[in-house]
Amino acid sequence: MNRVYVVGIGPGAGKQMTEEAREVLNACDTIIGYTVYVDLVKEQFPEKEFLTTPMKQEVKRCKMAFEEAMKGKKVAMICSGDAGVYGMAGLMYEVGVEFPKAELEIVPGITAAIGGAAVLGAPLIHDFAVISLSDLLTPWEKIEKRVRAAAMADFVICLYNPSSRKRHDYLEKACNMMLEYKAEDTICGIVRQIGRDGQESRILTLKELKDTEVDMFTTVFIGNEQTQEMDGHMVTPRGYRDV
Amino acid sequence: MNRVYVVGIGPGAGKQMTEEAREVLNACDTIIGYTVYVDLVKEQFPEKEFLTTPMKQEVKRCKMAFEEAMKGKKVAMICSGDAGVYGMAGLMYEVGVEFPKAELEIVPGITAAIGGAAVLGAPLIHDFAVISLSDLLTPWEKIEKRVRAAAMADFVICLYNPSSRKRHDYLEKACNMMLEYKAEDTICGIVRQIGRDGQESRILTLKELKDTEVDMFTTVFIGNEQTQEMDGHMVTPRGYRDV
Repeated sequence: MNRVYVVGIGPGAGKQMTEEAREVLNACDTIIGYTVYVDLVKEQFPEKEFLTTPMKQEVKRCKMAFEEAMKGKKVAMICSGDAGVYGMAGLMYEVGVEFPKAELEIVPGITAAIGGAAVLGAPLIHDFAVISLSDLLTPWEKIEKRVRAAAMADFVICLYNPSSRKRHDYLEKACNMMLEYKAEDTICGIVRQIGRDGQESRILTLKELKDTEVDMFTTVFIGNEQTQEMDGHMVTPRGYRDV
Repeated sequence: MNRVYVVGIGPGAGKQMTEEAREVLNACDTIIGYTVYVDLVKEQFPEKEFLTTPMKQEVKRCKMAFEEAMKGKKVAMICSGDAGVYGMAGLMYEVGVEFPKAELEIVPGITAAIGGAAVLGAPLIHDFAVISLSDLLTPWEKIEKRVRAAAMADFVICLYNPSSRKRHDYLEKACNMMLEYKAEDTICGIVRQIGRDGQESRILTLKELKDTEVDMFTTVFIGNEQTQEMDGHMVTPRGYRDV
């Protein structure tokens, strides 16, 4: 069996990488990934072979990984954050059906929800829902249904891909839906460039969030009924104090 | 300012710990945590001072951390998995209000949803909801509302604390609610002792899950409409193949 690793390198490929991830990358011959992620790790692993494909060539990228492994190389496909949250682990299993002699191992990483929460304080202490606002691969009606359901049941909500050039008003639309169920002063937080140079964050209300422009490098958090701002941090209590 | 670290040590305190977490623990004088978690790291940091409190003494444990920091020690409060997902980061902010000279820094870790997903395959590739079935700190009605909302909107669902001695039928109850919206053959997965000795996992249908006994060391995953079993793994496609 040729083993192929799918590795989450954490939000910035820096110290938030797990020890297991670094160990696997150190042991590999070839590291494959989206151009931007490969650039993040290249300097840290100078002796490796690197292969990339641009965005929208994900299937090709996966095939490349299996084909290199079939040549006898030890291969790792890397993803920013975690490989299993909107990452390549799923597609690797799908494409892997054509390569029955290869076996996948998924190495988990810190996804933006977890890394961004740590920057803001402790927003995800209680039940939460993670939703991508990108309708590139999902019908908007489904996204809408999920945003409404999560807001209605008072989940803390973490939004991935809140914006892009073509979808500049999606976050505003999502906020308007959440405002049907959540109060205007619900505490929210945004984090940009998590774990990378230029990381920045801000706490604001849901009403303010609605009129805030964010870019595709931003992760957005919307609190539940209990979420508070504490000394500049976004904190969702779990209730230990009442026990 | 005395800085206090709240550190997620990952599922098993082994190689899934981030480099940042190990760096912080190495630099600390005192490591504080729930007895079971302290036992997980003790051997790896032989020269540290360790302080513990048992379960249900969370507030005391937090105060202890701040009090030790006020003595001038460099202190880390550790949590299994991530400190921000059902972890101590929130309570540390709450208790921290009484210690205005202390500043918190949260160091993220691999939570059971992320670590367990990597064991099963790729169940969380698309929008997902994380729900704890423990009604120790949350009214059961709220849990019920969230389970129904998440099932209704076809989220992949990850359940923490699916069972305990007093709550042996909670998973069955949750499955019955989900079966109102999700098909009986929905692909599910369970992982026990993630990242620890004796780790085990199983893929099964929602109908089978309903009649399965799990313990408190188990994390449960319920797929969405697209989730499939592929070669013994639980995989939720994201849709790249249709682009």
